[in-house]
Amino acid sequence: MKYRIEKDTLGEVRVPENKLWGAQTERSRNNFKIGTEASMPFEIIKAFAYLKKAAAYTNTESKVLSTEKRDLITLVCDEIIEEQLNDHFPLVIWQTGSGTQSNMNVNEVIANRAQLLMKKEIGTEPVLKANDDVNKSQSSNDTFPTAMHISAYIMLVEKTIPAIENLLNTFKHKSESFKDIVKIGRTHLMDATPLTLGQEFSGYTQLLANGLKTLKNSLSSLSELALGGTAVGTGLNTPKDYDTLVAHYISKFTGYPFITAPNKFEALSAHNAIVESHSALKQLAISLNKIANDIRMLASGPRSGIGELLLPENEPGSSIMPGKVNPTQCEALTMVCAQVMGNDVAITIGATQGHYELNVFKPMIIANFLQSAQLLGDACNSFNENCAKGIEPNNKRIDELVANSLMLVTALNTKIGYYKAAEIAQTAHKNGTTLKKEAIRLGYVTAEDFDLWVKPENMI
Amino acid sequence: MKYRIEKDTLGEVRVPENKLWGAQTERSRNNFKIGTEASMPFEIIKAFAYLKKAAAYTNTESKVLSTEKRDLITLVCDEIIEEQLNDHFPLVIWQTGSGTQSNMNVNEVIANRAQLLMKKEIGTEPVLKANDDVNKSQSSNDTFPTAMHISAYIMLVEKTIPAIENLLNTFKHKSESFKDIVKIGRTHLMDATPLTLGQEFSGYTQLLANGLKTLKNSLSSLSELALGGTAVGTGLNTPKDYDTLVAHYISKFTGYPFITAPNKFEALSAHNAIVESHSALKQLAISLNKIANDIRMLASGPRSGIGELLLPENEPGSSIMPGKVNPTQCEALTMVCAQVMGNDVAITIGATQGHYELNVFKPMIIANFLQSAQLLGDACNSFNENCAKGIEPNNKRIDELVANSLMLVTALNTKIGYYKAAEIAQTAHKNGTTLKKEAIRLGYVTAEDFDLWVKPENMI
Amino acid sequence: MKYRIEKDTLGEVRVPENKLWGAQTERSRNNFKIGTEASMPFEIIKAFAYLKKAAAYTNTESKVLSTEKRDLITLVCDEIIEEQLNDHFPLVIWQTGSGTQSNMNVNEVIANRAQLLMKKEIGTEPVLKANDDVNKSQSSNDTFPTAMHISAYIMLVEKTIPAIENLLNTFKHKSESFKDIVKIGRTHLMDATPLTLGQEFSGYTQLLANGLKTLKNSLSSLSELALGGTAVGTGLNTPKDYDTLVAHYISKFTGYPFITAPNKFEALSAHNAIVESHSALKQLAISLNKIANDIRMLASGPRSGIGELLLPENEPGSSIMPGKVNPTQCEALTMVCAQVMGNDVAITIGATQGHYELNVFKPMIIANFLQSAQLLGDACNSFNENCAKGIEPNNKRIDELVANSLMLVTALNTKIGYYKAAEIAQTAHKNGTTLKKEAIRLGYVTAEDFDLWVKPENMI
Amino acid sequence: MKYRIEKDTLGEVRVPENKLWGAQTERSRNNFKIGTEASMPFEIIKAFAYLKKAAAYTNTESKVLSTEKRDLITLVCDEIIEEQLNDHFPLVIWQTGSGTQSNMNVNEVIANRAQLLMKKEIGTEPVLKANDDVNKSQSSNDTFPTAMHISAYIMLVEKTIPAIENLLNTFKHKSESFKDIVKIGRTHLMDATPLTLGQEFSGYTQLLANGLKTLKNSLSSLSELALGGTAVGTGLNTPKDYDTLVAHYISKFTGYPFITAPNKFEALSAHNAIVESHSALKQLAISLNKIANDIRMLASGPRSGIGELLLPENEPGSSIMPGKVNPTQCEALTMVCAQVMGNDVAITIGATQGHYELNVFKPMIIANFLQSAQLLGDACNSFNENCAKGIEPNNKRIDELVANSLMLVTALNTKIGYYKAAEIAQTAHKNGTTLKKEAIRLGYVTAEDFDLWVKPENMI
Repeated sequence: MKYRIEKDTLGEVRVPENKLWGAQTERSRNNFKIGTEASMPFEIIKAFAYLKKAAAYTNTESKVLSTEKRDLITLVCDEIIEEQLNDHFPLVIWQTGSGTQSNMNVNEVIANRAQLLMKKEIGTEPVLKANDDVNKSQSSNDTFPTAMHISAYIMLVEKTIPAIENLLNTFKHKSESFKDIVKIGRTHLMDATPLTLGQEFSGYTQLLANGLKTLKNSLSSLSELALGGTAVGTGLNTPKDYDTLVAHYISKFTGYPFITAPNKFEALSAHNAIVESHSALKQLAISLNKIANDIRMLASGPRSGIGELLLPENEPGSSIMPGKVNPTQCEALTMVCAQVMGNDVAITIGATQGHYELNVFKPMIIANFLQSAQLLGDACNSFNENCAKGIEPNNKRIDELVANSLMLVTALNTKIGYYKAAEIAQTAHKNGTTLKKEAIRLGYVTAEDFDLWVKPENMI
Repeated sequence: MKYRIEKDTLGEVRVPENKLWGAQTERSRNNFKIGTEASMPFEIIKAFAYLKKAAAYTNTESKVLSTEKRDLITLVCDEIIEEQLNDHFPLVIWQTGSGTQSNMNVNEVIANRAQLLMKKEIGTEPVLKANDDVNKSQSSNDTFPTAMHISAYIMLVEKTIPAIENLLNTFKHKSESFKDIVKIGRTHLMDATPLTLGQEFSGYTQLLANGLKTLKNSLSSLSELALGGTAVGTGLNTPKDYDTLVAHYISKFTGYPFITAPNKFEALSAHNAIVESHSALKQLAISLNKIANDIRMLASGPRSGIGELLLPENEPGSSIMPGKVNPTQCEALTMVCAQVMGNDVAITIGATQGHYELNVFKPMIIANFLQSAQLLGDACNSFNENCAKGIEPNNKRIDELVANSLMLVTALNTKIGYYKAAEIAQTAHKNGTTLKKEAIRLGYVTAEDFDLWVKPENMI
Repeated sequence: MKYRIEKDTLGEVRVPENKLWGAQTERSRNNFKIGTEASMPFEIIKAFAYLKKAAAYTNTESKVLSTEKRDLITLVCDEIIEEQLNDHFPLVIWQTGSGTQSNMNVNEVIANRAQLLMKKEIGTEPVLKANDDVNKSQSSNDTFPTAMHISAYIMLVEKTIPAIENLLNTFKHKSESFKDIVKIGRTHLMDATPLTLGQEFSGYTQLLANGLKTLKNSLSSLSELALGGTAVGTGLNTPKDYDTLVAHYISKFTGYPFITAPNKFEALSAHNAIVESHSALKQLAISLNKIANDIRMLASGPRSGIGELLLPENEPGSSIMPGKVNPTQCEALTMVCAQVMGNDVAITIGATQGHYELNVFKPMIIANFLQSAQLLGDACNSFNENCAKGIEPNNKRIDELVANSLMLVTALNTKIGYYKAAEIAQTAHKNGTTLKKEAIRLGYVTAEDFDLWVKPENMI
Repeated sequence: MKYRIEKDTLGEVRVPENKLWGAQTERSRNNFKIGTEASMPFEIIKAFAYLKKAAAYTNTESKVLSTEKRDLITLVCDEIIEEQLNDHFPLVIWQTGSGTQSNMNVNEVIANRAQLLMKKEIGTEPVLKANDDVNKSQSSNDTFPTAMHISAYIMLVEKTIPAIENLLNTFKHKSESFKDIVKIGRTHLMDATPLTLGQEFSGYTQLLANGLKTLKNSLSSLSELALGGTAVGTGLNTPKDYDTLVAHYISKFTGYPFITAPNKFEALSAHNAIVESHSALKQLAISLNKIANDIRMLASGPRSGIGELLLPENEPGSSIMPGKVNPTQCEALTMVCAQVMGNDVAITIGATQGHYELNVFKPMIIANFLQSAQLLGDACNSFNENCAKGIEPNNKRIDELVANSLMLVTALNTKIGYYKAAEIAQTAHKNGTTLKKEAIRLGYVTAEDFDLWVKPENMI
């Protein structure tokens, strides 16, 4: 491999010739060989591109950067956003906890790419300086948390929320389709009074609606940006009104309503908004786990399980066993839920350990957040398309179970009294027969009255 | 000990003569000897008293309960709320996961106490029947989650929120008092550019404000009550409009704006609101841990630490060591924070495992919630009164550190250029001297100019 | 209430006259009103009594304490161990993180109680000095972690381990009793090839055996005691060989094989042994949760569930619903498991934040440990006695399900070929009939051959 | 892109022409678009190659597979192990929870690759059948957990354990180098009695030694393999002694002492060994977090922190700020620790939810395990090479702090009595002066005696 020489204040470093990064990126690559290369989520890099461009516009407006430089920075940022420079961001999550090295990676790539765009050789007099121009009016300490919020916000509104809404709509639709299907209820996993399958699915709908409400609530916290706080939150070295103006530009370029954070000291030293928003993801994971568990139990069988639901068959279950439709989408979804719950603890532990003016668990925190948000979104889409939409009631089985249920005897309480009703139920339980059979045999009810009085659909 | 005989459908049980509970409570006592007796939080019992009273009013209004019975139920419920019957609730958290046995405990105590109030012997013809009267139009499955929400809501608004607000106000006040105290900033635990002590405390204020916002947001979810769903959520056996009316009475008796839950199937089978609200407690714990850590580090010393803050001396630190004021309030608070974070996982695991129509981790979930809410409230009060209010700046130390700081050299950049400024800082670092001394010795700045140009107060 | 005046270096404090504690305990009571009074686990107090007695013996042997004082200390320690002085330890978990105040509580009670034993008034010239005599050659920093290990060790060997062993033995016994009961297997919750109920229970036995092995492995770590490290681990102010000798006496008085820790710096500043041992409790909780879940699902019904197991009926399930035996012991056990998993995170967060020479999350860490160890022990005992021992197979249901299973068709593969076997299964699945019926109807197998070839008992 | 047609029992599927996978892999790819493609850890694929080869050898020895087929399977497995076929394993973690689809991916690739090796076209009469030959005597349900143990074991012994041992050795070496450096101790973050820097590092050494012991203990559990249990643990369709023989071959091919699991029902339905071993990783994470925190606090400064340690400068800290060596390796390491603690919860939640004969959180569980084991290993190596080895004491600062410490006054207790000693300390504290100065000024000690008596090196 061929190399060129890049320099920083510690001296010279060899960088692969075909890569746009500079000395500080290369040092980080060598000093942090932890896990897979380039594990820093690309969403973060893209968010940096938005904010660098916004900073350039703000700097130009504040007369501290030339229009030429601004346009050059913009040109490269747009290339990054369009994913044309993906090979030039090799750094890992497990670097400095402020994310400084990823900020420098972006600065270096922009500066070196600008050189090429201006037909100059890298290493000769730079048209853009990584620190002085690209990073102007910024610090790693305010850019990285800003990139965290931008990337988290975009992931939620473009991936997670639509996916959950789609699944919610499917449940809502199923809830309506199933509104007349009376089935046995179960509490403590034991037979209980009936309800409709539609009511059961309305519970799932409500669970997701609640989680979505909490998640959407957190968007306003995520919309607050640290940029303008610079190194410790004071905003040292920024032009007047820089913070509000740069938030305005970020808002303009991304299309989302970002604003400047009311207190930059908090915004650098802690990650409340990420904690709040990930808690909502955890809440959704709890609900989705419950729903997926219920669905796979209700679909269990085909002969020796509950068997009230039929799931779509997406892949061969057992080569010899017809009807063995494994609830694989439920399994993928619940594994994702467990991961999200674990990630919540990783974020908690990182967020809790901020010291003084700077929390230095930033890359770990945002990597976990983005993984949770993406996995939940993807898994909900997958579950929705490949499972939820295709769920069908096994009406024969549902009717059989409700008809056999001993709980229906409660309908007779008001007709023949509690004690006779109980006797019927106990006899049916002992003999393994139906309520109707024993009710008639005991002489307490006629067949006609039984059918008239014992109607599960009246108990829901 | 003397006993009386109580009966249920499984037969006879011996109950201590001086206790008001009945057969089902006694069975639970014997079958669940797990942990300390009477560990079920009393807040839950009190919430049950509110809801039993409200149910009685609603039943009477719906013409299914006599006014006499309602008034009798009310009389006992008021005694429970006034904590006159505390000895009669012996059950533990670790019972049936629906909390059925605590519901029955309340029903039994109300019925037996009514007997005494009516000057009748327990065991003779009951004036109130535990199931038919006290539990009328209710099921354990909707009363226990209702008691969860009532107790959680009350704990938050009466204990947790005021305590956090008090602490927030102290930080706000300190933030204003300290607004002119310029101090060294620290990022990565290393010296950074200065800020004011007031700015640092404004970050703490913002952290608590954010957490409070999330916590208060969750109150509306907690205000939704399951009561009226009965066994599986369908509301079987309840009079018309029972759910909204009973919520109205609970609201009236407690003084808080409770309403009926929009979907009872969700309200029985999951615990979204508790999860959401406890996540907010966890968010506050994360923030409080960060704040308490910073304060104890800033107060460390007296000689070999940071030493910028002085904490009140509440107890002897070391008998021989003057100035060894251990940050014990910080320690208690951070231990509480760790507990809350652990409780969040316990709640997550319980909430995630609801099966079908009923989640059966209810007592564990609410016990953890109430513990977190109470401990955070108590610890904030303790920290506020015994530590935060008495925090004083160690001005001598703060000034010394900021004066010695090498970071101030950045103020010279615009005056003598970056390279000369850097040379001054490097020389001072190498020699262990001050910037001023080396600036003068190197001949780059006069003493007068140095004092004029290098003003930390201009860097904030 | 009447008070007496106690003094410490900060001045005078009023102490309730009928209590044996002194000034420092009283200050802690007033400064840490967090949660329930006297929440510090009594097991810790008892462990302190053992170690104070052992320290007195060691000091006497090292000629730094008189025999009279040793005997007086011993007398009071024995009273504490015999639980005669329980009312005199009012402190909470949420105090100073070193547990200093509970150490002083013990010192003060011993000194004041000695005064009474010697017929002297508290406040007059002390026969024992709390610091100089009772705490001689000790520091809070080495006594509290020592008490943590002693109390944890005793709880495990006297409560947790025997309870788990009892449950394991029940499962082992059931596994043998059930060894000939062939039943349908289930993977992905779907019907699979058969196994015996005994094999299923042998899996539970192995799960507990594995967990017990890990738990017992951790005892050797817990047996290492910090005592002798004093304030920072150097053992300043201790006589020669104090650490090994005091461990010997603790071992002698408790009857358990305690030894001195190889490195006191680690023993004060971290809590590896507690972390290791609680991880084993968490491992057991994971297994117990899986077992309890399986059992309640296998026992679900009576009509609309799996119904393969019958659980003992310990309390009325439903008044009208015969056979509704709620799996309440499973519910209590799984709630305990969730708590243990949450406690593991609380301990993790506390243990991870030790600073320099001392971890100051000690009381929280040990309180969580003891709660987990006790709850797991109690819950296993309760589950064993009230559920596991009484589990019976529902043979009729088990046979029915296995006979109906389509998976048995695999037994025909080698007789009539894969494709004909699959055709039989698919036809039976489509028609909702049995394999035998379709096998004969399709003309592939005679009834005699079918019975000869398709034997679930040959597939296990 | 060009495609070929592959078939399974559900019909035809289009597979990219240049890929070796078959129909079931392709269905999984399409049905589980969750997260990044090919996220299933390659270590799992490699472990599958070992076990497929071992199964082939065992099958041949049991006369159920020809030598030719065995050799062909072996040829492809060796290619997989040598990482020549990496592009053919596109599946994700978030698939079916049994890992069936990854098992089929391996089976399909082996069969198709064999076709090419035999110069036959894929799709024509296969030389190896994916199910009948490659998967012979196996099920996904026993192969996937076997691959979990193999990959976990190898990662630990080849990556994690050596890395931790290296770091431990560095600490041990430092502990010896620093054995004569007397420094101030700190408890509650406050000044305490002195110890040596070597003693402090000996605590770190012991912490890692304890964690390593627990981790190595878990290897024996990981060495037990499920293979031979097939679908539900009964070993249906395996030749005699298959399980022990296949474990023998796995042991032979990997070079590690694998054996067959004593109980296959446990081995399929739960993941005790992974839980146990990951708990040990969590224990190490707790310790490493404490160590890294201490080191960064001890190195904080250069002017306004503790400043007792000097860390190697690996990258530019601040362009203007000399001596600002950010503790970036500590930051990367503590972020990894937080991730490991989070992963522990994800594993806990997955392991706790096994149903009946099969736990279906397998891919998520092993992915978290392998991530933790690799990250901890990598991070320890990085921390060791780039930080720990280069740690140097700042002797000037250490001496200054210990000399200024007020705690040294305890050395005068036995010479001039407690009260005079305390007076000296209090005066020095009040005046901000040294003990020596005040001791002389108060006339209690001469300068000569002070130097003779007050020697920190005698207090350790």
